[in-house]
Amino acid sequence: MSIIGCVPNISEGRRADVIRRLSSETSAVRGVRLLDVTSDREQNRSVFTFIGNTASLGRAVYRLMKIAIETIDITRHSGKHPRMGIVDVIPFVPLRNVSMELCVRLARRVGKEIGESFGVPVYLYGQAATAPHRVSVNDVREGEFEGFARKIKLPKWKPDFGPERVHATAGVVAVGARPPLIAVNINLDTPDLPLARKICDGILRSCGGEYLKALVVGRGTGGSAKIAVSVLDFKRLPIHRVVEAARRLARRQGAAIEGVELVGLVTAESLFGSLEHYLQLVDFNPMQVLEFHLSRRR
Amino acid sequence: MSIIGCVPNISEGRRADVIRRLSSETSAVRGVRLLDVTSDREQNRSVFTFIGNTASLGRAVYRLMKIAIETIDITRHSGKHPRMGIVDVIPFVPLRNVSMELCVRLARRVGKEIGESFGVPVYLYGQAATAPHRVSVNDVREGEFEGFARKIKLPKWKPDFGPERVHATAGVVAVGARPPLIAVNINLDTPDLPLARKICDGILRSCGGEYLKALVVGRGTGGSAKIAVSVLDFKRLPIHRVVEAARRLARRQGAAIEGVELVGLVTAESLFGSLEHYLQLVDFNPMQVLEFHLSRRR
Repeated sequence: MSIIGCVPNISEGRRADVIRRLSSETSAVRGVRLLDVTSDREQNRSVFTFIGNTASLGRAVYRLMKIAIETIDITRHSGKHPRMGIVDVIPFVPLRNVSMELCVRLARRVGKEIGESFGVPVYLYGQAATAPHRVSVNDVREGEFEGFARKIKLPKWKPDFGPERVHATAGVVAVGARPPLIAVNINLDTPDLPLARKICDGILRSCGGEYLKALVVGRGTGGSAKIAVSVLDFKRLPIHRVVEAARRLARRQGAAIEGVELVGLVTAESLFGSLEHYLQLVDFNPMQVLEFHLSRRR
Repeated sequence: MSIIGCVPNISEGRRADVIRRLSSETSAVRGVRLLDVTSDREQNRSVFTFIGNTASLGRAVYRLMKIAIETIDITRHSGKHPRMGIVDVIPFVPLRNVSMELCVRLARRVGKEIGESFGVPVYLYGQAATAPHRVSVNDVREGEFEGFARKIKLPKWKPDFGPERVHATAGVVAVGARPPLIAVNINLDTPDLPLARKICDGILRSCGGEYLKALVVGRGTGGSAKIAVSVLDFKRLPIHRVVEAARRLARRQGAAIEGVELVGLVTAESLFGSLEHYLQLVDFNPMQVLEFHLSRRR
């Protein structure tokens, strides 16, 4: 059985009724499973995690976009996470028995549909990008919604699909394809944002910037400074190396990690490496884990 | 879907052809899956891990017993692990949507069949035990095969099924039901067995003897002293607490853990607690792990 993941980031993390409607109406799409919704009040952002195939995910994203346009206004959005649209970014992820190529084609098809059906400018990014300067979603998003009125006029930033004019309430959207990643929020036991930035820079330096992204995204509900980390290549950089680096760097500043939040979906494979490390497991075979075994026999 | 585990321990860990035949002929039983076979040369013992339902596991155990009687002679067995029979112990384990009660009934049915069909004395143990002194398989096994000629004559040790006479080549067998456990071998970086015993005693003391069993079982292939640990209640005693205790106690003796081998099957749930501990995960939801999620939707 082949499985594609889709992890839209929505610029709404506060209004429970809107998040609930987005969840219930998209999860009702045949063939799609909504595995997780993680909302963050401070970031005012929600991460939806779907799995499905090309057809069902296409339908779910269409539905998501439609409801988001009805319920969210980017001009009224404020939050700690940078954003350029109400549905800020839509990555497709090859999870099992699926090529990256297929996810790239799906991103193009869905991007085209969003541009044509909703009149929202679409930028293809990641493996689906049409130019090297558009690969990183951070580069695409630079200037955020407010800056796009001008940015979109630059030939370099002509959208891949849709009008060459920012949608008044929906902004613009990035649609792309990328490998599975591990997204975590590292919460520190201090509200000190400059100190958090120092630790964040240290993480990027010590873990190798090409394998992860890290960004201080403000304070959590308890007031603790929050570093959002995405590990882009868990085989080269297992998650425990990031957590250990953060722990060490925090200690050096007289601080500590308060807790680590896993955001969205991960594959078991991306966690087993850390388990092996900490427990010093030798000759560990994932098939010894009942659920892993069962999931492989479908 | 309901799933029962069955984890027979066979007193043969060296002859590859015998282990292969036991594996291939039992895994061919309809409705059974053989998930893992872990053999240990020094212990001269193999642990088979099956999953299935009451009917299919009954058939697999019958087949296993039959082949073992044809191929293994307990009077010729020598190894580091104590044993009383060629199929030393047959535990049934409720893994999913199955009551312990059902596993107890299955143990009784299978025990009766082994006693009657093969003329091998059977002791019910664990949750299936017919008396308190028979709950622990270590107590049942005390004296090993060599001691059973006399032990079996004691009224206290009258078998639950089968003849009141040890089978000449198969010995006796314990059949029972127990909760899922985590079995690991902790290999030290030293061949020093008395030192390993000190560490083993320390583990038992510091982790609470009611939640685990621990036993020095000799040296591994590389010559390292090996402590076999079974965690009986991973909710009360997560595996990382055992490993950390072993690490600390070894360090105090100027030694270290060389590696930890996971033996047989575990449930993801029994590992997640350790992952949460080491990575300081907060609000972790197992459903965020793709394979765990998929395995639940069957």
